[in-house]
Amino acid sequence: MRTVFWQDGKVKMIDQRLLPGEEVIAEFATVAEVARSINEMYVRGAPAIGATAAYGMALAAYLSDADDSAALLDELRQAKETLDAARPTAVNLAWATRRLYTLAEEIAGEAASGQSSTYELKQALLAEAEALADEDVRINRRMGFNGAAVVPDGANLLHHCNTGSLATVDFGTALGVIYACQEQGKDIHVWVDETRPRLQGARLTAWELMRAEVPMHLIADNAAGHLMRTGQVDVVVFGADRVAANGDVANKIGTYKVAVVARENGIPVYCVAPTSTVDLELPDGDHIPIEERGAEEVAEIGARPIAPVDVPVYNPAFDITPHRYLTGIVTEEGICYPPFDQSLRRAVEKGRAAILAERSERG
Amino acid sequence: MRTVFWQDGKVKMIDQRLLPGEEVIAEFATVAEVARSINEMYVRGAPAIGATAAYGMALAAYLSDADDSAALLDELRQAKETLDAARPTAVNLAWATRRLYTLAEEIAGEAASGQSSTYELKQALLAEAEALADEDVRINRRMGFNGAAVVPDGANLLHHCNTGSLATVDFGTALGVIYACQEQGKDIHVWVDETRPRLQGARLTAWELMRAEVPMHLIADNAAGHLMRTGQVDVVVFGADRVAANGDVANKIGTYKVAVVARENGIPVYCVAPTSTVDLELPDGDHIPIEERGAEEVAEIGARPIAPVDVPVYNPAFDITPHRYLTGIVTEEGICYPPFDQSLRRAVEKGRAAILAERSERG
Repeated sequence: MRTVFWQDGKVKMIDQRLLPGEEVIAEFATVAEVARSINEMYVRGAPAIGATAAYGMALAAYLSDADDSAALLDELRQAKETLDAARPTAVNLAWATRRLYTLAEEIAGEAASGQSSTYELKQALLAEAEALADEDVRINRRMGFNGAAVVPDGANLLHHCNTGSLATVDFGTALGVIYACQEQGKDIHVWVDETRPRLQGARLTAWELMRAEVPMHLIADNAAGHLMRTGQVDVVVFGADRVAANGDVANKIGTYKVAVVARENGIPVYCVAPTSTVDLELPDGDHIPIEERGAEEVAEIGARPIAPVDVPVYNPAFDITPHRYLTGIVTEEGICYPPFDQSLRRAVEKGRAAILAERSERG
Repeated sequence: MRTVFWQDGKVKMIDQRLLPGEEVIAEFATVAEVARSINEMYVRGAPAIGATAAYGMALAAYLSDADDSAALLDELRQAKETLDAARPTAVNLAWATRRLYTLAEEIAGEAASGQSSTYELKQALLAEAEALADEDVRINRRMGFNGAAVVPDGANLLHHCNTGSLATVDFGTALGVIYACQEQGKDIHVWVDETRPRLQGARLTAWELMRAEVPMHLIADNAAGHLMRTGQVDVVVFGADRVAANGDVANKIGTYKVAVVARENGIPVYCVAPTSTVDLELPDGDHIPIEERGAEEVAEIGARPIAPVDVPVYNPAFDITPHRYLTGIVTEEGICYPPFDQSLRRAVEKGRAAILAERSERG
């Protein structure tokens, strides 16, 4: 089953806030609700957020009463603003809404010359959202097997946050590398960082790996250093919410500590992210906005206090890992190595060309 | 109020497992129960464990029906074994039981030459346990002010685990440095690592600092790297459960990651520990036993699951921070700097001399 999908004029997704205790499919029937599903983290993970936002744009078109394409474009512009504001750090969100909006502009341009209608525009946007979701799965499989090439048989991997089926439409980014190793019959074992404060590792990655029967142990984030220092980690893998042009990576809070301690111990570190996560507009990580979230994520678990009432909390959701701590960045177009500014640009250009080629094949 | 104390033939202590929700004084009336209070972490923190174990030895003597000092010594030897087995990593436990047992042997030696009785021996052991507890408070204040000398006015400190009044008989080790800064009128602010899995930072340190009105923010352990990289941490302080002769430090899991990332960012790192925590018998940290604790500490919070049922867990309670990551080790006898093998030995010798001097003053 896919993490997010379109059915009967609604955007549907598994409510990840309830996992692993309950498996519930939540439905969202307006653009504002889809934005809320992203902000409140029913869905999370940069690629999954991107697909959700694409369906949100398709939903805006689907619900529109506009008579002409200019009016529909106005509504799509508003929908894009609403969706883009839902979370600031993951670039896939704006990448997806821009991709659908740009397509709408192109079609509307044709419509102005009498070749299209709002009906066709609505159909095209839904088709594009579905294509983006399908493409995410294909891209993840390619990334996974690209990354598996650097994981030796018998390896112990350390993984941060959740980057699996649930963080994407299906298969995953860094967890995709692990699934690819498993498909190749490699004997691997995964140390799963629980990933405080929201416990995506404990709740989601552990759940995925246990279902997939990949050997694993859950650890407190604090235990990762001890494992690395005592020679029990061979490769570190994680995803990304945004990659700057120089290879600096914004990812779930705690990634930076993992990467620094890995490099200190001579352990290779791979960020696994599709080219849609690379933001060539940003020169480096210091230009990536870091989302701060509510105190309750740290001070409570399941609405139950784990700290004194009214404790002051600082809760950044992401951190920046400077590119010098990365061995490579695994994309669907191959593994990028330093100097990242060059290798990433080449990969992004190949990724863009692939999207256009696929769209033209669709006709 | 003291963390642990003797009253009416019982060892009493605040049940730290229930903080900050409830403040309950638990009572323990047998040696086996006192060992359980340590193992189940009613009390934790190396100096507090040491004082508890000393009271446990005094309790063994107090409860004894032995007619002569040889029989009493046998019972004390058994009590020492029971207490020493309660937790393997903190050296203060064995340090305290050995201190009381050695004193008992000395007194029994005098008794064999007709100068003492079991009554006197019982009195002497209780007096020694009380002296050890009193001494812990004095030592902590000296350590605190020794450490405060390296904390500039206006500093942001990062603190791991709990090392305050609750980890000691009173005042604290690393938190003692913070209390000393406050007494000196310095304008400081503390980032409090929540310290998974048992959340000693969120539950105990936050509670202590809020009561003491020290400005602070609670953070997920994962956020510490981001703060250090972005220039928001000036000094890192933590305690120790055991310090090897070369300055390698065993402390709460996660300390190693903090120290590595601090050094990477040029931030001074101080371990704050009394000389009773230094184990000159151990050449380095690789010889320190690391306690592994139950899966439920990671997989549950307050008996409520936060991960899939039956998830495999690896849960080491401590890690080793090699001495090269430490700027200094703050003791009651001054700050030890590299080469630690020399500076620590001098401090330990001064600490031992101070104990003997105090005992001889008591008469």
